[in-house]
Amino acid sequence: MLTYNLEEKNKPLYEQLYSCIKEDIINGILESNEQLPSKRSFARHLGVSTITVENAYDQLISEGYMYAIEKKGYYVADISLIHKIKKTKIKRDDIILPSAFLNYRYDLSGNQVNTNTFPFSIWAKLMRETISDESDKLMKKSFCSGVESLREAIALHLASFRGMSVDPNQIIIGAGTEYLYSMLLLILGKDKRYCVENPGYKKILDIYKMNGADCSYVDMDEDGIIVKGLIDNNADVAHISPTHHFPTGITMPVSRRYELLAWANAVSGRYIIEDDYDSEFRLNGKPIPTLYSIDACGKVIYVNTFSKSLAPTIRVSYMVLPVELANLYYERFSFYSCTVSNFEQYTLAKFIKLGYFEKHINRMRLYYIRQRAKVMEALKKSSLNNSCKVIENNSGLHFVLEFDTQLEDEVLKASLIENDIYISAISEYLHDGKKKTGESHRFIINYSNLDTDKLIEVFNLIDSLL
Amino acid sequence: MLTYNLEEKNKPLYEQLYSCIKEDIINGILESNEQLPSKRSFARHLGVSTITVENAYDQLISEGYMYAIEKKGYYVADISLIHKIKKTKIKRDDIILPSAFLNYRYDLSGNQVNTNTFPFSIWAKLMRETISDESDKLMKKSFCSGVESLREAIALHLASFRGMSVDPNQIIIGAGTEYLYSMLLLILGKDKRYCVENPGYKKILDIYKMNGADCSYVDMDEDGIIVKGLIDNNADVAHISPTHHFPTGITMPVSRRYELLAWANAVSGRYIIEDDYDSEFRLNGKPIPTLYSIDACGKVIYVNTFSKSLAPTIRVSYMVLPVELANLYYERFSFYSCTVSNFEQYTLAKFIKLGYFEKHINRMRLYYIRQRAKVMEALKKSSLNNSCKVIENNSGLHFVLEFDTQLEDEVLKASLIENDIYISAISEYLHDGKKKTGESHRFIINYSNLDTDKLIEVFNLIDSLL
Repeated sequence: MLTYNLEEKNKPLYEQLYSCIKEDIINGILESNEQLPSKRSFARHLGVSTITVENAYDQLISEGYMYAIEKKGYYVADISLIHKIKKTKIKRDDIILPSAFLNYRYDLSGNQVNTNTFPFSIWAKLMRETISDESDKLMKKSFCSGVESLREAIALHLASFRGMSVDPNQIIIGAGTEYLYSMLLLILGKDKRYCVENPGYKKILDIYKMNGADCSYVDMDEDGIIVKGLIDNNADVAHISPTHHFPTGITMPVSRRYELLAWANAVSGRYIIEDDYDSEFRLNGKPIPTLYSIDACGKVIYVNTFSKSLAPTIRVSYMVLPVELANLYYERFSFYSCTVSNFEQYTLAKFIKLGYFEKHINRMRLYYIRQRAKVMEALKKSSLNNSCKVIENNSGLHFVLEFDTQLEDEVLKASLIENDIYISAISEYLHDGKKKTGESHRFIINYSNLDTDKLIEVFNLIDSLL
Repeated sequence: MLTYNLEEKNKPLYEQLYSCIKEDIINGILESNEQLPSKRSFARHLGVSTITVENAYDQLISEGYMYAIEKKGYYVADISLIHKIKKTKIKRDDIILPSAFLNYRYDLSGNQVNTNTFPFSIWAKLMRETISDESDKLMKKSFCSGVESLREAIALHLASFRGMSVDPNQIIIGAGTEYLYSMLLLILGKDKRYCVENPGYKKILDIYKMNGADCSYVDMDEDGIIVKGLIDNNADVAHISPTHHFPTGITMPVSRRYELLAWANAVSGRYIIEDDYDSEFRLNGKPIPTLYSIDACGKVIYVNTFSKSLAPTIRVSYMVLPVELANLYYERFSFYSCTVSNFEQYTLAKFIKLGYFEKHINRMRLYYIRQRAKVMEALKKSSLNNSCKVIENNSGLHFVLEFDTQLEDEVLKASLIENDIYISAISEYLHDGKKKTGESHRFIINYSNLDTDKLIEVFNLIDSLL
C-alpha cells in the first residue's frame, strides 16, 4: 500500500496527505484509473484517522485529481490534460499607464473642487447616524433606481431649486453621468442618431460611439446648438447643456429652448438629454428654468450630478426620465443593480433633507464669487490686463480670456507647459476640423480651485509669452 | 414709460420687475423688437436703483426675452416660438414598478447577507479615519482604475487567499460586476461571441445581449461547462464560475480547467471570464486554485466582488486583466471615471490592509457552517427528510434539495408562494427549453440569511404539499 511520511509540523495532516497523493498523480507514479486504497484501510496503514484520509480524498476529488465510484472505491483521474506551466512574473513596466493624470504647478483650466469647502464633519456625523439608525436597510440590496429616501430628497431639491415637478420614481440614481449615458443608450436604443455640441467635450461623443451608437457633432451659434444642424444631421437625440455650456459658457435663451422642444416634438422618437451640471453655481440672477420644466410632452431627460455640486469623491449622479421612458426602464432594465452604495445614498439623502446641501451650495456660491473677484483683481494688477479681453458669463465656474496675440493656440499652450502652467484653449473643444476664426486665442480660466496668491505672477508670465 | 407697482414684500425688487416685464412680453403687451427704456431713466421713473433695473434686464436677456445692442439700448426679443404650455402633473400610478422586489415571509432561496455579521463599528471607525486622514486625497478625482491603495490591498489579498500573483495595475475597480461586464464588452469587443453556462443566471446573458453582443448558452455536465459545446457554438469568450457554480454548486475539477485553458489558447482572441464570487466561503478543505492562477498565457480575466463577501451595500467589485488587455484598457478606456466613491475605496483599503477583511471572512465561514448545520438539523427533524435528498457541495452558501414528488416544479412553487414561502427551482435556470430529466424537482436552499427558528414547520409544510 501507498506509504507517506506525514511529518511537517505546521501543516494539517490531511493537507500533507493531499499534497503527497497529488504529487504522485502529477508525476505519473499513480496512473490514471488506478484504484486507491479505501479510506479505512489507508487510515489504518498510515496511522491517521479516517477523517484525515476523507478530507484529503475530498479535496483531490473536488480538484479533479481523483474520482469515486459509489460502492466500488476511489480512482486516479485522467490528468493527461494537466501540463506543468511556468508562469512569468508580471513586471511593473509591462503595463503602460495613461498620462492624463499628470499634475502641473499651476492648472488654470482644472476643475478640481476645493477641499476646504467640503463639510467633512457633517458628512462624517451623518454617515455615523446612517450606520447606527439604518443598519438593516443598509444591508438590503437597494431598489434598481436607488433608495427611496434619496430619490424623494432629490425630487424636493429639484422642486425648490429648479422649479421642477418630478415624481421620485422618475429619478434613476447612478454612479456617475458616464454610467447614466450608457444606461440611456440602452433605454433609447442604439439605432438612434445622437448629436452633441461642437465645441464640447469629446468624451460624450466617445461614450456614445464606443457603446455602438451613431453619434456626430452639431455646431453652436451664440444661443447654443443650432436646430437646423440637428435636422441636417438627422439627429434623433440631442445631448446638450443649455444652462451652462462648456467651454463657451453660453446659456441658451428661452426662444432657442422652445425651438428645440418644437424640434423634439415634430417627430416621434426624438429626445433631448439636458445635462444640467454646475447649474447650482449660477452666480448672478435667478436660475434659468430648465428645459425639462418647460417640456410638456415628455421629450426631455434631465441629468445632473453631485460630483460637481458637492464633491468628486461622491459618485452620485441621477437622471429624471419622462414617464414613458421611466416605464420602459422599469419594465426592461430593472434587473440592473443600482451602482451606488447604500451608505452614500442614505447619507446623501439626510444631507439634502436636513438642509445641508442648500447651505453648502450657498457657501460655495459665496466662495466662488470671492474667487472670481480675486482672479479679476489679479488680472487687473497684471500686465496681461492690457492684452486680453474677459468673456464673461453669469453662470458656472469658469470664464474665457481672449488673448491679444498672433500665436497659434497650441504654440502658446506648449510654451506655458514648459513653465509648468497648464491652460486649455476653446479650440481644443472644436471638432471635425471646424476652427472658426472667432474661437482662436480664447482660453479657459476655471477658478473653482485656483490658488490666487501667485496669480499676478502667472498672468505676467503669460503676457511675456504672448 | 412703462409703469409697474413693485409692492410684493417677500420678493426682491429686481425679481418683481423681471416678472412684470416678462409677463408683458409673453402677453404681447411689449412687442418684439420694441425698444425698452434705458436703465437709468427707467430706474428714476420707477423710483428704484439702477442696479435693480440692470439685474432684471440681465435676467431677461439671459433667458432670451430681451436683447441688447451696444450703445443703442435694450429691445424685446422675438418670442413667437414661446408658447404657453400646460404641464400635466405626474401621478404615482403613471409609473409601474417592477414586482421583482417583493418580500415573502420565508425566502428559502434568497441571497441576502445577514446584517448582524457586518462589522459596522469597525467600518464606521475606518470611515472616520479616512475622512480625517485623507481629506485631500478624497477630494481628488480617483485614477481611472481605482485608488492605488485599494488595488494594492486587493493584490495582497489575492496573493495570500487565492495564491494569485497580480500587479495592482492589472486590477480595475468598478461599481458592481454588471458594470464590469459592460466594460469588458468594450475592451474585448462586441464582434465576439460570448457564451455563458446553462443552467445559469439569465441576467449575464441579458447584459451581453442588451449591450449589443452576440451571446448564447452552452450546456454543462457534472464537471462544468462542456468544452465541445464552446467549440460547437463558435465561442470566443466563455463566461463561467468554476469555483462555485450557481445553481448547481459544481466546482470545476482541475482536468476540465486545463481543458478550458487549452481551448482558449488554441485560437487567438479567445478569453475566459472567471467569475469567482463566493469563493471566500468554501466551507471545507483548501480553496481550489483559480483558473487565473494556472493560466500562463494571459487568457483569463478574473472577476470578484465585495458585495457578496462583505455586504451588498458596498458596491465594490473588481477585475484582474491579463497584461495585454490591461494595456488596451489604459490606452483606450482610461477616460472613463472610476464608478466607486473615494470614501469607500479608501475605507475598504484600510479594512483589508489591517486584517479586518480576513477576520470577517473567517467569522462568516464559522457563521455559515453553523447555519448549514442548523438547516440540516431542522431538515432531519422534519417530515420532509424522508421525501428529499440533499445534493451537497463543499462551497458556497447554498445546497440543492431534490424532492420526491411528481409535481411539476412550477406547480409546487406556486402552491408554496400561496403559503408565503418562496423557493427557486434549478429548472428556472435552465434555458433554451433544455430541461433535462435529472434537473427536475431540484430546489435551491440558500442558508446565508435563513431564519432557522421556524424552519421545521416550513419543511413540514413543504412535505405536506409534495
